[in-house]
Amino acid sequence: MNRVINNPDLVVEDMLRGILVAHPELRVSADNPRVVHHVGAAQKGRVGIVTGGGSGHEPAFIGYVGQNVVDAVAVGEIFSSPTAKSFLDAFRAADGGAGVACLYGNYAGDNMNVKMAIKMAEREGIRVRTVVANDDAASAPLDEIEKRRGVAGEIVMWKVAGARAAQGGSLDEVIEAAQHAIDVTRSIGIGLSACTIPAVGKSNFTIKDGEMEVGIGHHGEPGIEVQSTVPARDMAKLMLDKLLPDLPFARGDKVSLLLSGLGATPLMEQYILYAEVADILREAGIEIQFSRVGNLYTSLEMMGVTVTLTKLDAELSACLAHPCHSIGITVGGAS
Amino acid sequence: MNRVINNPDLVVEDMLRGILVAHPELRVSADNPRVVHHVGAAQKGRVGIVTGGGSGHEPAFIGYVGQNVVDAVAVGEIFSSPTAKSFLDAFRAADGGAGVACLYGNYAGDNMNVKMAIKMAEREGIRVRTVVANDDAASAPLDEIEKRRGVAGEIVMWKVAGARAAQGGSLDEVIEAAQHAIDVTRSIGIGLSACTIPAVGKSNFTIKDGEMEVGIGHHGEPGIEVQSTVPARDMAKLMLDKLLPDLPFARGDKVSLLLSGLGATPLMEQYILYAEVADILREAGIEIQFSRVGNLYTSLEMMGVTVTLTKLDAELSACLAHPCHSIGITVGGAS
Repeated sequence: MNRVINNPDLVVEDMLRGILVAHPELRVSADNPRVVHHVGAAQKGRVGIVTGGGSGHEPAFIGYVGQNVVDAVAVGEIFSSPTAKSFLDAFRAADGGAGVACLYGNYAGDNMNVKMAIKMAEREGIRVRTVVANDDAASAPLDEIEKRRGVAGEIVMWKVAGARAAQGGSLDEVIEAAQHAIDVTRSIGIGLSACTIPAVGKSNFTIKDGEMEVGIGHHGEPGIEVQSTVPARDMAKLMLDKLLPDLPFARGDKVSLLLSGLGATPLMEQYILYAEVADILREAGIEIQFSRVGNLYTSLEMMGVTVTLTKLDAELSACLAHPCHSIGITVGGAS
Repeated sequence: MNRVINNPDLVVEDMLRGILVAHPELRVSADNPRVVHHVGAAQKGRVGIVTGGGSGHEPAFIGYVGQNVVDAVAVGEIFSSPTAKSFLDAFRAADGGAGVACLYGNYAGDNMNVKMAIKMAEREGIRVRTVVANDDAASAPLDEIEKRRGVAGEIVMWKVAGARAAQGGSLDEVIEAAQHAIDVTRSIGIGLSACTIPAVGKSNFTIKDGEMEVGIGHHGEPGIEVQSTVPARDMAKLMLDKLLPDLPFARGDKVSLLLSGLGATPLMEQYILYAEVADILREAGIEIQFSRVGNLYTSLEMMGVTVTLTKLDAELSACLAHPCHSIGITVGGAS
């Protein structure tokens, strides 16, 4: 496959160089090139928001570092957890004395490294609490929800927590808001092609022409079912048939809807799916109150889409409407 | 190829349905489903900004309809000009009595249809002036600049004109600003894969694995040269070696830099190229004062990238900094 890279072993370094020069409001940690923080991070008395994860999901995770969203991010290799040291350095970069909310996705490597980092941080007097996102409804049954992976629902968790921190919330309040946000969020993806880690040079999974993987994970993890491709309206139905009963979402609910391409899916096709999802929600009596469409959380050049629904209440709605600015999400603007 | 569509002949209709439900600030024209305007269009006494073009380039063109950018857009079939009637209806939707600036790209179909639409508009007393973007430096020699195509430089033209209109500029002032913006703008693309119109089902051109097309057009039009793929830093050099002498851009210049993926190129790779472009500009003594990275102007699921440079002066800088809000570009936000 033809790519826009230099050395395939240095794609993360080379990407970070580009992000830092393009966004002067983002800064690399003085003693860790794999930690990036916002220029306004570590405000005295304000809870710091940290996340981290493997690269290759851009704009996640680094693209959600910004004003009133994430303060600092630990950057991993492609599809690999950041090190414990990087999580620790991200805590240091984000801590303004009021503690750090580390909000990340449920993957074995991240769980292990965050735990180690917290132990080290405690020795330095940095208080860290975590929320582990598990919004991927396809990744385990409901009665094993603790096994589910975190995917694009993390964006909602970061946005809500960033807003609560900006509003002066305590660490416990920020954690409670982030936990609540992810608890009422469900995501599902459909994969239409594989993707290739540059340094590996070939994909570790395949999706045939004419087939799709319903419930695929963000690293090609197996989903619920491989089946023949169907029109967009049937994709929407498959996805919502899984998501709606899972929470459940019910008539009268107001929701946030994030519809993301997985990397190579044209925006045109994302909006085609959006129309179908919106139709089903309207028929179900569920109102879309906040939404975003685009490449919000990707898997390199995978073809495919994800849908993320969050059941809103007054506090979540207010947090989503709170102004913020980052590569991946901006709320507010001209008026 | 696996896609997220319903009927391949109705992808534009289906996309528009999604865009309109996702963005309530956008409205379809009452008597033309292929014209979309901003809810604030046709403000009395304010110059209306219109564009139009084929679909498949999302977020262009429709994604630049918004507050203080484009007021109304004529939407064509994939890679095909909108009809003259659609351009006329877009003029009607945007006209608030102060005239309409129709700012579009240099393609035969668009030229013909805009001309016909203007004749019809004049009979209704709508004053329309045009600027025809020709920023694609690879599409014809400098001494035949009038033959060059319009590409992502149109975004700069729209942004600048939208700002001048918002500032109360007259039609002549808006046109002058838009013409100046495109006159000091140069773009070039590199194609790394072909793309496929859904209703056609196969590409009308090919790019082999291990080869790239330097100077490719947004519909797969032949570029300057097909050659073996090179690292990102050499891609950057190839592109800037063409762009910098063409205007020319010189030491001490301040520029706007738009770096766009063509659809399937991961954001990671776009930032890798950004770092290389920024290096060359810095070495050349050229300062990046405004920039955007992402899928700004695409060609369905083509792999590849485009670089657009604009030489800034005080007026252009002020116009780019003017707050605006649309799917494709937002300036301002949290603070």
